[in-house]
Amino acid sequence: MTHNTKQQHGEDIAIARLFPEARTLIDGEEIYGDLELPLPASPDRPYVILNMVTSVDGRVSAGGKSSGIGSRVDRTCMRVLRSKVDAVAVGAGSLRAEKMNLGLDRGDISQPLAVIVGGSGGIPLLQNLILGEQRLLVAVPRGVRLPANAEEIPATILRTPADEGRVDLAWLLRALRHEHEVQRLLVEGGPGLNRSLIGAGLLDELFITVAPKLVLGQEHAIISGSAAGSAAGTHADLSLLSAHQAGDELFLRYRVQNRG
Amino acid sequence: MTHNTKQQHGEDIAIARLFPEARTLIDGEEIYGDLELPLPASPDRPYVILNMVTSVDGRVSAGGKSSGIGSRVDRTCMRVLRSKVDAVAVGAGSLRAEKMNLGLDRGDISQPLAVIVGGSGGIPLLQNLILGEQRLLVAVPRGVRLPANAEEIPATILRTPADEGRVDLAWLLRALRHEHEVQRLLVEGGPGLNRSLIGAGLLDELFITVAPKLVLGQEHAIISGSAAGSAAGTHADLSLLSAHQAGDELFLRYRVQNRG
Repeated sequence: MTHNTKQQHGEDIAIARLFPEARTLIDGEEIYGDLELPLPASPDRPYVILNMVTSVDGRVSAGGKSSGIGSRVDRTCMRVLRSKVDAVAVGAGSLRAEKMNLGLDRGDISQPLAVIVGGSGGIPLLQNLILGEQRLLVAVPRGVRLPANAEEIPATILRTPADEGRVDLAWLLRALRHEHEVQRLLVEGGPGLNRSLIGAGLLDELFITVAPKLVLGQEHAIISGSAAGSAAGTHADLSLLSAHQAGDELFLRYRVQNRG
Repeated sequence: MTHNTKQQHGEDIAIARLFPEARTLIDGEEIYGDLELPLPASPDRPYVILNMVTSVDGRVSAGGKSSGIGSRVDRTCMRVLRSKVDAVAVGAGSLRAEKMNLGLDRGDISQPLAVIVGGSGGIPLLQNLILGEQRLLVAVPRGVRLPANAEEIPATILRTPADEGRVDLAWLLRALRHEHEVQRLLVEGGPGLNRSLIGAGLLDELFITVAPKLVLGQEHAIISGSAAGSAAGTHADLSLLSAHQAGDELFLRYRVQNRG
């Protein structure tokens, strides 16, 4: 076993940066380990990044769960990104789909704030959220009933203005920035939250893991489709910032060119 | 302007192979220009490759047309792949969506056979297929009425057994191999034909261009979803054979690990 390989499913795989400046990562070095995210350009929101894993045919889940798509290297990568931000957000739909935690494996560095973006559906906090030491903020649109078990979990409940029954994301991001000291926010889906975020021009960067798989199922894409997006042609252009490879899996980082 | 750049939308962009053995392509060298596809392993069909362009959010079209997604480099790449095969096939649905040709720009090398895979829908050959010097084969399931204008175009009509109302692809591939001397076949979609091909375990390689765009629309993924695929989890594993970059656009080549 050489120093530039990592164990996965019992096999050694080399991890390399392909672009810019191709090189093999040395032992102990993680993808995005040396990443330094910019500070927010806007005074009204954090710097917002999105991290998703997708199959080559563009599916974010297999059998309804995203946990079947990415490798162990992808899961490490996800936790490295979490260590670079002040808060990690997911939509309530993702929490309904499977058990998850939004924190770091390491206990020696401070955990990001966990943010659940609720809507009109249920939020199974007790059942599906593995919280550990993390602080939790649950955002729900005004007028929507709180989850029945919200009182059993120590969470900050944030009542936000409603935007077509959903949390007003611009309002939420402003509150995270100004009332919860969130300079950098990582969003981890699901596809509905991603669409609202990108549609509102609130995303700065997209991190995407391309898993070497074909799913073929009736599963979601990384971003829910919208009729508006279809009529308008392409919605946003991206710039490729970096590409890494671990075996057959690719890790791509893009900057979003928000229009207007 | 240096030798390793190519003109696109008035800008110079460097084209590089990222993996394996990263290097910048020299002037006049095309992505996949030196590609040598294997001969078919099976005696019953050609070696089958699929080439598609997708946005980062996994959409193969914008506003219903695929022509809005890829760059000029992608279109060159598509024609290079066509020059490596004996036949190029698309489903009739792709032809209904937009005008297309399935040939090469260059007149000095022999054109691949154009193959249209029909089903129960219309096949607008006269309206949407720009044929030039290419020979044309139209495959339709037995019992399905031929396009009204089929006689106006010099085409070989192949009546195939029907597989749930669609062309039996294994039968078609055998006929292409044994009756039309097709050793290597390039499929260019659409998503329904791709699904049938992959679902039947008939695909050897997948070439995918990842265009630096977000579409957000209600557009197709590279492969239509199927309930069967969903229930079974992931359908196939892929091996990454190469990765190229032209500016922000990526060109990925995968081998399909067919199961069983």
